[in-house]
Amino acid sequence: MRRRLLTPGPVELHPRALAALSRPQLHHRTEEARRAFLNARAGLKRAFGTEGEVLLLTGSGTLAMEALVLNLFAPGDRVLVPVTGKFSERWAEIALALGLSVDRLDLPWGGPIPPEAVARPGYRGLLLTHSETSTGALNPVGVLARAFRERNPEGLVVADMVTSLLLTQVGLEDLGVDAAASGSQKGLMCPPGLAFAALSPRALEALRPRGYYLNLKRELEAQKEGESAYTPAINLVLAVEAVLEEVLPRLEDHLALKAWQNDLLYRVGEGLGLRPVPEEKSPATTAFYLPEGIPYARVKEAFARRGAVVAGGQGPLKGRILRVSLMGYFDRYDALGVAELFREAWGELGLS
Amino acid sequence: MRRRLLTPGPVELHPRALAALSRPQLHHRTEEARRAFLNARAGLKRAFGTEGEVLLLTGSGTLAMEALVLNLFAPGDRVLVPVTGKFSERWAEIALALGLSVDRLDLPWGGPIPPEAVARPGYRGLLLTHSETSTGALNPVGVLARAFRERNPEGLVVADMVTSLLLTQVGLEDLGVDAAASGSQKGLMCPPGLAFAALSPRALEALRPRGYYLNLKRELEAQKEGESAYTPAINLVLAVEAVLEEVLPRLEDHLALKAWQNDLLYRVGEGLGLRPVPEEKSPATTAFYLPEGIPYARVKEAFARRGAVVAGGQGPLKGRILRVSLMGYFDRYDALGVAELFREAWGELGLS
Repeated sequence: MRRRLLTPGPVELHPRALAALSRPQLHHRTEEARRAFLNARAGLKRAFGTEGEVLLLTGSGTLAMEALVLNLFAPGDRVLVPVTGKFSERWAEIALALGLSVDRLDLPWGGPIPPEAVARPGYRGLLLTHSETSTGALNPVGVLARAFRERNPEGLVVADMVTSLLLTQVGLEDLGVDAAASGSQKGLMCPPGLAFAALSPRALEALRPRGYYLNLKRELEAQKEGESAYTPAINLVLAVEAVLEEVLPRLEDHLALKAWQNDLLYRVGEGLGLRPVPEEKSPATTAFYLPEGIPYARVKEAFARRGAVVAGGQGPLKGRILRVSLMGYFDRYDALGVAELFREAWGELGLS
Repeated sequence: MRRRLLTPGPVELHPRALAALSRPQLHHRTEEARRAFLNARAGLKRAFGTEGEVLLLTGSGTLAMEALVLNLFAPGDRVLVPVTGKFSERWAEIALALGLSVDRLDLPWGGPIPPEAVARPGYRGLLLTHSETSTGALNPVGVLARAFRERNPEGLVVADMVTSLLLTQVGLEDLGVDAAASGSQKGLMCPPGLAFAALSPRALEALRPRGYYLNLKRELEAQKEGESAYTPAINLVLAVEAVLEEVLPRLEDHLALKAWQNDLLYRVGEGLGLRPVPEEKSPATTAFYLPEGIPYARVKEAFARRGAVVAGGQGPLKGRILRVSLMGYFDRYDALGVAELFREAWGELGLS
C-alpha cells in the first residue's frame, strides 16, 4: 500500500519536484545548471522576502542553522534563546557547541514567548523559531524582534523558518529578522537535502566567516555567479526551481489553502474532543494532546492501517501528543479526504 | 539534445538510482527507511573494506572531509599534506581553516608522491588523496600510509576516496588508512548530496567530536539504529542502497570494466598524440595535456556538438588539460561509442 505522509516533514512531493528528479543527471558547471541555480536563488529571495541574499547549501536545515550562527557570531558572543520546543532547543545546542555564551530562556513547550522576556539588553543576538514544528506553535517573530532590538540596537535576530517558508507570510526586513534558515523538505514540497541560509542586507554586513564547508562568504562569491563552492545537490536545485515557478505567482492563494487545510484538521481534532498543543497555531502542522490512557502506538497504527504516516511527540512531549500535517502537496479534496480518514481512525479507537 | 556526462562527477546515473529517485517521498522515521539506511551502511562498509563504521552525511564530499578533520584532530595538531592537485590542496585548506598546524608539501600536480617524502616524524596525521580527480592520478595510499606510520606510530592516516570508491580496490585496514571520505555522485553513480565518512576501528577509538552538524559521535549513535541525527537525504540513501545491491555481488567484474573503459580512452587519446597528465593513472578519469595552440573552449565545443559534456583543468591546470571520464553508468558498448566520439571530435579540430 502506498503510504501518504501526514508528517511535518519530509512531506508529499510536489509533482513538479518528482518530474525534475526523474531527469538524467545535470552537470553543475553548465549554463543550464547556472540558470537553474540563479532562478532558484531569485525565487527564494522572493519567498523569504529579502533584498539580501539566499544561499543554497547541500545539507539538512540544521546545517543552515549552524552556518548562520558560525558566520554571524564569534565564540564568547552573548545570545538569548527562548526555548519552547525541540527546534528552539536546537538553537541553544548549536550556539553552545560553537562556543557562544548562551542565555537559555526555558518556557513551557507549545506556549507563547512574551515579548518582555526578550526585551533584555546586553546581547549580540536573539535566536528564534518562527514555526516550532515540535509543538505546532507559531511565534510572533516580528514582535519579538522589535522588543529585542529596542534594547539591543546592534543585536542580530536570527530565525528558524524551516516550517514557515511558503506556509505563512515571511518577510525578513519587514519582520526585523536579519537572517533565517530553511530547507527543501517542508513548504517547498521537495525531498530533504537542500538547506537555505537567507541573509538580509544587515546580516550581509555583519558576516564574519568561519569554517570551511559552512563558510558563507565563499559560498556567496560562488553563488552570485550561479555556481557553488562545492558540488551541490543540483537535482534538488532543479526541483526547488520548478516548485517555486509554480507556487510564487499565486503565493497568496497557496498560503490561504495551507491555512485552510490546517484549520480543517484542527476543527476535526477538536470536534473529536482533542486539545490542541499550541496556543498560537502554525499552519505547518496540527498537534493534539492524546487523551489519558491512549498510547501513541495505537493511534499511529490506526492511521497506518489507512495508509497514512503521522508523527508523535519529541523530547518531553514524546508519547503525549499526535501531529498530523498537510504541509506537503495536497489539494482541497485531498485535505477533505484526510479529514475523513482522521475521523475514521479515531472512531476505531472507540473514543468518539 | 540529451547531453551525456563524460565528466569526473557528477556522472551518468545508474538506472536503479533513477528509479529509486522517482518514487514517492519516504519518511525517514519508518521501518522501511531504517532498513534502507542499515543496508546502505552495510554495503558501504563492504565497499570501503572496513570492519569499522561508515556514516552517511547529507552534504557534499567536502563535508565528509571536513568532518573527519574536525573529529579526529584538535586545533594545533601537526598534520602533513602532500599537495599534487586541487583535492589534496583542499585537505590543506580544510586543516588550516580548522586551526591545525599544517605542513604542506607542494609537489608537481599529477606527479607521484615519493614515500620518503611522508616518512617524517612528529605528525599527528597524514592527509592523502587516493584518486586525485583534478589530474587523474592514483596515489599509492597503502605505501604512503606505511611509510608515514613507521615514523609516526600514533599518527592517523586520512584519505580522500571520493573517486576511488567502487572504481578501484579499496580496503581501509588493508591499506593502513584510518579514515576516508567519499560521496554519492562518483563511483556510486547517484546524484550529488550524500557524503560518506568511513572510520576504521582505530579511527573510532581516536574520535574526539566537535561541532554540531558534523559531530560524528552523535551521528554514530543514531546511525547504529538506522537513524540519523538530522533529517537525511533519504531519497539518495535509497538510490545508494539500490546501486550497491547491484554492484557489490560482482564487484571484481565492475572494477575490471571501469579500468578497461578508462584504459580505452587513454589508448584513444594517446593514439591521437595526446600526452597523459598523471604518471600513475586512476580509473576514475583520463586527463590529457592540450596541444599547444588549442584552446580548451574549442575542444569542449567539439564534444558538446556531439552531445557530450567533458571537463577542463582546475587551478594551475585551467585551460591546459582535457578530462574525459566514464566513471558513471556506461556499459562496454557505450564506452566504445564514446571512444569513437572522442576520435571524431578530435578529427574536427584538424589535428589528427
